Amino acid sequence: MWGRRNRFGRARARPVVDEAAKKKTLRMVPYALYLLGARRAEPAGPQDLHAYVVSWVSQASFKPPMITVAMGRDSHGLALVKESRVFSLNFLDAEQKLVAQKFFKDYERTEVRFAGHAYERGAKTGCPIFPELPAALECEVVEVVEKENDHAIVLARVVDAVHRRDARPLTHAETGWTYAG
Amino acid sequence: MWGRRNRFGRARARPVVDEAAKKKTLRMVPYALYLLGARRAEPAGPQDLHAYVVSWVSQASFKPPMITVAMGRDSHGLALVKESRVFSLNFLDAEQKLVAQKFFKDYERTEVRFAGHAYERGAKTGCPIFPELPAALECEVVEVVEKENDHAIVLARVVDAVHRRDARPLTHAETGWTYAG
Repeated sequence: MWGRRNRFGRARARPVVDEAAKKKTLRMVPYALYLLGARRAEPAGPQDLHAYVVSWVSQASFKPPMITVAMGRDSHGLALVKESRVFSLNFLDAEQKLVAQKFFKDYERTEVRFAGHAYERGAKTGCPIFPELPAALECEVVEVVEKENDHAIVLARVVDAVHRRDARPLTHAETGWTYAG
Repeated sequence: MWGRRNRFGRARARPVVDEAAKKKTLRMVPYALYLLGARRAEPAGPQDLHAYVVSWVSQASFKPPMITVAMGRDSHGLALVKESRVFSLNFLDAEQKLVAQKFFKDYERTEVRFAGHAYERGAKTGCPIFPELPAALECEVVEVVEKENDHAIVLARVVDAVHRRDARPLTHAETGWTYAG
């Protein structure tokens, strides 16, 4: 019995958390998909602009209007956001799954298009804004929180917004994709 | 013309952001409703335990599992979470709108029930856990970020989870309530 306790009992480190329950529960949190637009501090051309898909977004304040976005610690997007201290957040609508899909991988960047999709430079931040998408925010970084979290928490003030049309957002549930757990 | 420019033009401070567009866009972010369970550092009775409704929740890390919750700066819940450094997050299912409703206002607390709903004390944190709800996380606070945001960002590690049944979460869309914009 002692040997058994030694292998399976308290003497051995036990998992801190029920992994299956943790995964299922964290996947109950609803998320949408967004194209986060970023740039170098002093972009010399389209190669210094970037857009990629993020999901872990939440409002953080009404007055002033602020949001948090969790960005992968190793992501190119985070490196740019830390350098320029600005970003855009472009809202995809439920019909734009195929648009999102193109921004998971490498894509062609020109002065006016990313992956074939027209973009402009946001008036307040200079970050990519996609007129084809229903809405966008422009944001200025206030704080980047990097503790043991594998995604940096970027706390940012909303400095401009454009809402082109009412739209159902593209959610994880809608796509069948999962990024949580 | 000068007078007109003075009143409406650049000489006067202009709104930093298009208010209507900002509100509509921020309301496109999907949210669920949760009962956040909290306690004083050394609770002497049910009056030192608390549960209330929060919405601004996002995952912040896979490894280790972490989340952020934005909590009103003046809320009793935040005061308790800052004191005890722990909380629980109880997931409501789509059928539990009436449960959520009870936790917006003051309610009766006994040793075993809040507002008539049975609770237990979480094994890892001692915070209220509601067996009637489909799932819960227990969390330890890592950081509280309070800049000019009117809700504190509470970054926390998930130290335990219980998933009782599959359930569609109670979302803002489901309730018709709004807490964003």
